[in-house]
Amino acid sequence: MFNNLISPSAIAVIGASPDRSKIGHAVLQNLVNQGFHGKIYPINPSCDEILGLKCYTEISSVPGKVDLAVIALPAKLAPSVLQECIKQDVEFVIIVAGGFSELGEEGRKLEDSLKEKLKGTRTRLIGPNTVGIIFPHSKVNTALTPGERIWFPGEGQIGFISQSGALGLLIMDSLAENGTGISGFVNIGNRADIDEDDLMEMFLEHDETRSIVAYLESISNGEKFFRTVRDVNMKKPVTILKTGRTSEASAAASFHTGALATDDRVLDGILRQAGVVRAYSEVELLDFGRALAYARPLEGKRIAVLTTAGGVGVLTTDLLTTEDSRPALSMARFSQEEIGQLKEHALPIASLNNPIDLTADGSTQSYASILEILAESGNVDGIIAYALPQTPKIDTSVIGPIVNAARKKTVVVGVIGNRLTRDLMVDLEKAKIPAYPSVPRTVSAMKALYLRRMYLRRLSNDH
Amino acid sequence: MFNNLISPSAIAVIGASPDRSKIGHAVLQNLVNQGFHGKIYPINPSCDEILGLKCYTEISSVPGKVDLAVIALPAKLAPSVLQECIKQDVEFVIIVAGGFSELGEEGRKLEDSLKEKLKGTRTRLIGPNTVGIIFPHSKVNTALTPGERIWFPGEGQIGFISQSGALGLLIMDSLAENGTGISGFVNIGNRADIDEDDLMEMFLEHDETRSIVAYLESISNGEKFFRTVRDVNMKKPVTILKTGRTSEASAAASFHTGALATDDRVLDGILRQAGVVRAYSEVELLDFGRALAYARPLEGKRIAVLTTAGGVGVLTTDLLTTEDSRPALSMARFSQEEIGQLKEHALPIASLNNPIDLTADGSTQSYASILEILAESGNVDGIIAYALPQTPKIDTSVIGPIVNAARKKTVVVGVIGNRLTRDLMVDLEKAKIPAYPSVPRTVSAMKALYLRRMYLRRLSNDH
Repeated sequence: MFNNLISPSAIAVIGASPDRSKIGHAVLQNLVNQGFHGKIYPINPSCDEILGLKCYTEISSVPGKVDLAVIALPAKLAPSVLQECIKQDVEFVIIVAGGFSELGEEGRKLEDSLKEKLKGTRTRLIGPNTVGIIFPHSKVNTALTPGERIWFPGEGQIGFISQSGALGLLIMDSLAENGTGISGFVNIGNRADIDEDDLMEMFLEHDETRSIVAYLESISNGEKFFRTVRDVNMKKPVTILKTGRTSEASAAASFHTGALATDDRVLDGILRQAGVVRAYSEVELLDFGRALAYARPLEGKRIAVLTTAGGVGVLTTDLLTTEDSRPALSMARFSQEEIGQLKEHALPIASLNNPIDLTADGSTQSYASILEILAESGNVDGIIAYALPQTPKIDTSVIGPIVNAARKKTVVVGVIGNRLTRDLMVDLEKAKIPAYPSVPRTVSAMKALYLRRMYLRRLSNDH
Repeated sequence: MFNNLISPSAIAVIGASPDRSKIGHAVLQNLVNQGFHGKIYPINPSCDEILGLKCYTEISSVPGKVDLAVIALPAKLAPSVLQECIKQDVEFVIIVAGGFSELGEEGRKLEDSLKEKLKGTRTRLIGPNTVGIIFPHSKVNTALTPGERIWFPGEGQIGFISQSGALGLLIMDSLAENGTGISGFVNIGNRADIDEDDLMEMFLEHDETRSIVAYLESISNGEKFFRTVRDVNMKKPVTILKTGRTSEASAAASFHTGALATDDRVLDGILRQAGVVRAYSEVELLDFGRALAYARPLEGKRIAVLTTAGGVGVLTTDLLTTEDSRPALSMARFSQEEIGQLKEHALPIASLNNPIDLTADGSTQSYASILEILAESGNVDGIIAYALPQTPKIDTSVIGPIVNAARKKTVVVGVIGNRLTRDLMVDLEKAKIPAYPSVPRTVSAMKALYLRRMYLRRLSNDH
């Protein structure tokens, strides 16, 4: 249903501009620079060509079929241009401009006129007031921010829905930290037509997407949202960051996108009922999205912690066994036989009670052997492994044993530091091992996996 | 009292080694590489020189006075070598080796023998089981981790006490993110003599230190700790990360440093009574340490939020006005006159209700003018300003207006993203503006400043 949005054969950019300061330039430039391999038609009656591409005077003069049209023109021109797109049977239209319902009554009327035009047609609209869409696998990138200003993620497994465009772009820029990719990004903006529900269903059907994350400031339609998120979350894990929890934040949200706020208690109930993991910050949203996309499902709450820095183990235990906005997990207890096995592979000074601290003398070899024992243990459900290349005898080859362990057990990795840890983070990301640069982020990711486990268990008990 | 520890004239490294894999090499190498300008005496009876420095057979054969001796020898040799240092009237001794009270009864006896020897002398001991000390202003660095493996912070304003050595080193490595410096670092280890109380007093007297942070797994002496932290915190802000909140974490802590855990409820009461800001992760510890060192004291809870990304403003409002492990703050309300002034400097599409969203069309000039109005406003106590160079008309020159505003009001800056934001973070750090790479970290830093304000207010009401 959304194939021509995710992987269109031809895209028209209406309002394409040779002026580098214009959005109509940035959109075209991103399509060209990201290497979109379908046809690109810039539409601008006063240019012959832009960025080496032949220009057309209007959408009707384009020689072939257009699957997706991006309207990069001022708000007041949008309705008539949308009408032209409908006439040409363009399946998907993106209206970039703001100046609609988010600016009050007059803008709302303008937005209503868009909705009117769509009625009874097969044209679907994203926006208005949107920074655009990104689908790395098909090299579709209609973002309005020039590529010099921002890092665009490459191919990945996370489907990202955002009601805020700018925040969405900033989050993606942050993902450059360890080269995290996405399967797709859509900024729904004022969602005059396509909304979060449509996109959750789209990502559910999208093979490249393994986990769905959404930033929302309000809900399009409460009842429909509940049905959709419940059904989608049964098959692919959904993480939601919904702002407007306090009355002050609701007010801020309504100034931002013009949408009416949903009572947070109602929303929270809906999310709990649907078993959706809730994030409380932009960092958690993608942290959890990664964990749920990459890690094996967690089977229980008994966690083993492996480190070469004692304090890291203690702090991890502290956060893991404390109930905060998420439940407490418990420290795995090893059998006497297992402790015997662990002893064979650790120095006498190592602490083998969970957390396992191999100390600053711990070696990659010892780390690997112990990780293997943990991965085989019937007393362990999940492993938090700290990969700390500051430890003199630990090097980046620890990634091999980590990948092996992650084939058998739920593994979340913590990597704390800087210089030496950067490459390791990128390599872990490539191997699709969820890795985090601090103790609290590592622990919260494991807790998110546990919330998913509790939900799946409830689901199987219900049937 | 601690002058010869912070800025010694001569340091002996007992057990200095030419073998690069030995701790006795790393300690000497760090002193040399960091450019310590006092005398360095390697002590090793079987070498003539190491790293170009003449070696001595024992501490008594060193020609001059030694202020600080680092004993980098196995645990069992430590008592007799400590005795030699005492004989030579060495004021400060660091014993690096582990293998004392953290390993049980036998080790505890060995540690007791160290304490015995110190009695009635003027020699003070750091450790045993310590990674060492760092004082960047005097280029003292006795860390046992080679400089290739870790980033050592430069000169700064934060005094850092850590009971865990490895975690302390990892935290410092993480500070490389934006080049945060420290005024000093001491890993107290098993604290057979010098403990957290001594060091809080040391940093209180240390002019370069503006804020003190401590990672603790247990408390040396509850009553003394309470008196010390209360007295020190009145004059310099103290932030404490104390682990072992749950019984499982207490157990982990006792395996780590051999210290008995303190009941967390008792400790929490002590910290509240003393008005100390409590951190719950290694990230918060240094985040709050920076905020309390750099920012002007907050005068109240009315916060203005300035952004060019609407969603960032909404999420900030959400976290700021929610009570979590810290109190909720409130959104500043501008007067009609102020809103009129703000309007003059913003585009019509900008949202001037707090949070102020200049939108993706916001410019550096508009940002600067509005920041100035906020800094002058009688309705604003603190400002959270997002510096987002992904916004096309915003560039890194926003740092000037931010520095100006920070002269008048409490300013905390959020910088989200990657490529373009790195340099900005470093520049903000140089200007001693507390800046953070995510919404939750930015908001939590402001909340930490508010906790300090509440404490100072209580203090002035009590007198």
